[in-house]
Amino acid sequence: MSAPRQIRWGFIGASLWASRYLVPAVRAQPDAVGVGIFSSSRERGEEFAASNGLERSYASIDDLLDDDGIDAVYISTTNDLHAEQTIAAAAAGKHVLCEKPLALTVADALRMREACARAGVVFATDHHLRAAPTIAAMRELVAAGEIGDLVAGRVFHARGLGEEFKGWRLERPEAGGGVVLDVTVHDADVVRFLFDDEVAEVTAMGANQGLAGAGLEDSVMGVMRMRTGGQLVSFHDAFTVPHASTGVELFGTEGALSGRDVIDAEPVGQVFLRRGDEVREIEIAERNPIYVEAVRRFDAAVRGEGTPLAGGDDGIAALAVAIAAIESARTGRAVPVPTQI
Amino acid sequence: MSAPRQIRWGFIGASLWASRYLVPAVRAQPDAVGVGIFSSSRERGEEFAASNGLERSYASIDDLLDDDGIDAVYISTTNDLHAEQTIAAAAAGKHVLCEKPLALTVADALRMREACARAGVVFATDHHLRAAPTIAAMRELVAAGEIGDLVAGRVFHARGLGEEFKGWRLERPEAGGGVVLDVTVHDADVVRFLFDDEVAEVTAMGANQGLAGAGLEDSVMGVMRMRTGGQLVSFHDAFTVPHASTGVELFGTEGALSGRDVIDAEPVGQVFLRRGDEVREIEIAERNPIYVEAVRRFDAAVRGEGTPLAGGDDGIAALAVAIAAIESARTGRAVPVPTQI
Repeated sequence: MSAPRQIRWGFIGASLWASRYLVPAVRAQPDAVGVGIFSSSRERGEEFAASNGLERSYASIDDLLDDDGIDAVYISTTNDLHAEQTIAAAAAGKHVLCEKPLALTVADALRMREACARAGVVFATDHHLRAAPTIAAMRELVAAGEIGDLVAGRVFHARGLGEEFKGWRLERPEAGGGVVLDVTVHDADVVRFLFDDEVAEVTAMGANQGLAGAGLEDSVMGVMRMRTGGQLVSFHDAFTVPHASTGVELFGTEGALSGRDVIDAEPVGQVFLRRGDEVREIEIAERNPIYVEAVRRFDAAVRGEGTPLAGGDDGIAALAVAIAAIESARTGRAVPVPTQI
Repeated sequence: MSAPRQIRWGFIGASLWASRYLVPAVRAQPDAVGVGIFSSSRERGEEFAASNGLERSYASIDDLLDDDGIDAVYISTTNDLHAEQTIAAAAAGKHVLCEKPLALTVADALRMREACARAGVVFATDHHLRAAPTIAAMRELVAAGEIGDLVAGRVFHARGLGEEFKGWRLERPEAGGGVVLDVTVHDADVVRFLFDDEVAEVTAMGANQGLAGAGLEDSVMGVMRMRTGGQLVSFHDAFTVPHASTGVELFGTEGALSGRDVIDAEPVGQVFLRRGDEVREIEIAERNPIYVEAVRRFDAAVRGEGTPLAGGDDGIAALAVAIAAIESARTGRAVPVPTQI
């Protein structure tokens, strides 16, 4: 691929996330533009194009992918559609930013990676939290040795589910619904990012507390064991906990970091550094919009300048952890995360 | 047993806990007195008696149990000795307050209960946290419906282990060392107390991070599932996390309670009530010494006035959860907690 002067974006899936975050983030770039949308509902696509200032609404995904005026696509359809749409986009020479989870199986995610590699297109996963200024600061503090060697971690991502997100997430197992594929997959990426390590093993317990439909967890708690460091990291993910803040906690031999309200698509939240009984807030120098940074990194990667925020490999690794968590919750056994990926 | 005018205490085990908490708590009662000590080290027993103002140091446990001037014993030897010492004390007609964990197996704990029932003596477990003013306040707020129906909980009991507690806890599996029997057993009682429910199932992952000896966990994380309510409750217990506060969090349909620094033998810590994004601190009206209340309740039970803070049944139930956690950590399987106890 030659690097385009301007990155021209197509959107596959007329999702809330696309309109709320991705379209504005593309618009915020000096050298990118949102061009068109494909939605399985023609009506919804037309509305999305109109309300988001896109010039085209395609009648089919093939029409979008055949458009030489599109360089990159953001895929935010239901989870079961990501794999084939990514593979088709790659075959059409489009760079792909795919929503998490990449797919419903690791095998599908590996096919996506292979298709993108063969086509020579950028393949990235929308693990946007790496660009959260709080979480990025935590990673820098850890890398700088501020809390010594990591000994444990905790991730809290239990909230109530906003009315606007109820739907297939709660009702369609075959579409990749449930809290683990929606939320735990993010935890896995955050943990990999902060520990700079892979997850070796996961144990989890799930519950259906009456919000999700039959066969889907709306609440899960579990533990990951890190591969190199051997540390334990707990996670609590739920759609059923309306009165809670999100959080990420890292404990080290010389101190601890606590991020409060840091799991968010907006650059909000606070980070505290603890040493003994002393706790002080870490000043977050810049609170740039998370998705503007995510799209900037993606566009730069398309131009051959650096890597996306989270690559396909990151998405595959996080998916593998989430799938291990689902298997653990359903079998009652700790599940190893495959290493060959 | 006729109710004695004054409860006369004997101490089995010259532990730090006995000298720091139990002896002063007995002394603080208007109608109790500390009489004597048995330690397996005669020298240590003499020193303990002298420095704690006890008139007698017994040469053998039988000498203590044969003393008609002792009504009740506090047993704080290593965990492997609790069962036989409790059974011997009961046979001698002494009321028993036993340190947690009651024993190394549920079967032993059931034998202890049977021996105490047969002898007609009070059998209590030192789960002192029920008398922590913060935790008691949380229970009252839950019972009053302040946070609606409980949907989830978290317990954090990871700290560094004080130098004074290093020893058999880290080095002797056969004495009942390791973080689960020492700490998770407390979590189990706190969770049972706050949820007013039993634990049905436990999954756990353990680690040895170089502090404990071979074959012992110095760090554990896991999840309990409550029997009646089905809620998930996470726990993180460790000797290897020096920069952390303890905590207990309860999430409900109408609010949440967060107890910070509440797992302590002193009446410290704070409780916060959250509703939506609003958080306010709950005023803790009285911060009475925890062990003074624990001994008061025990002494009252001896007089036939009410029940001890945590009975033998409570200790058995908490032990069963801890043993399930150990089994889960070692087998990688979720382990049901037996119901027949």
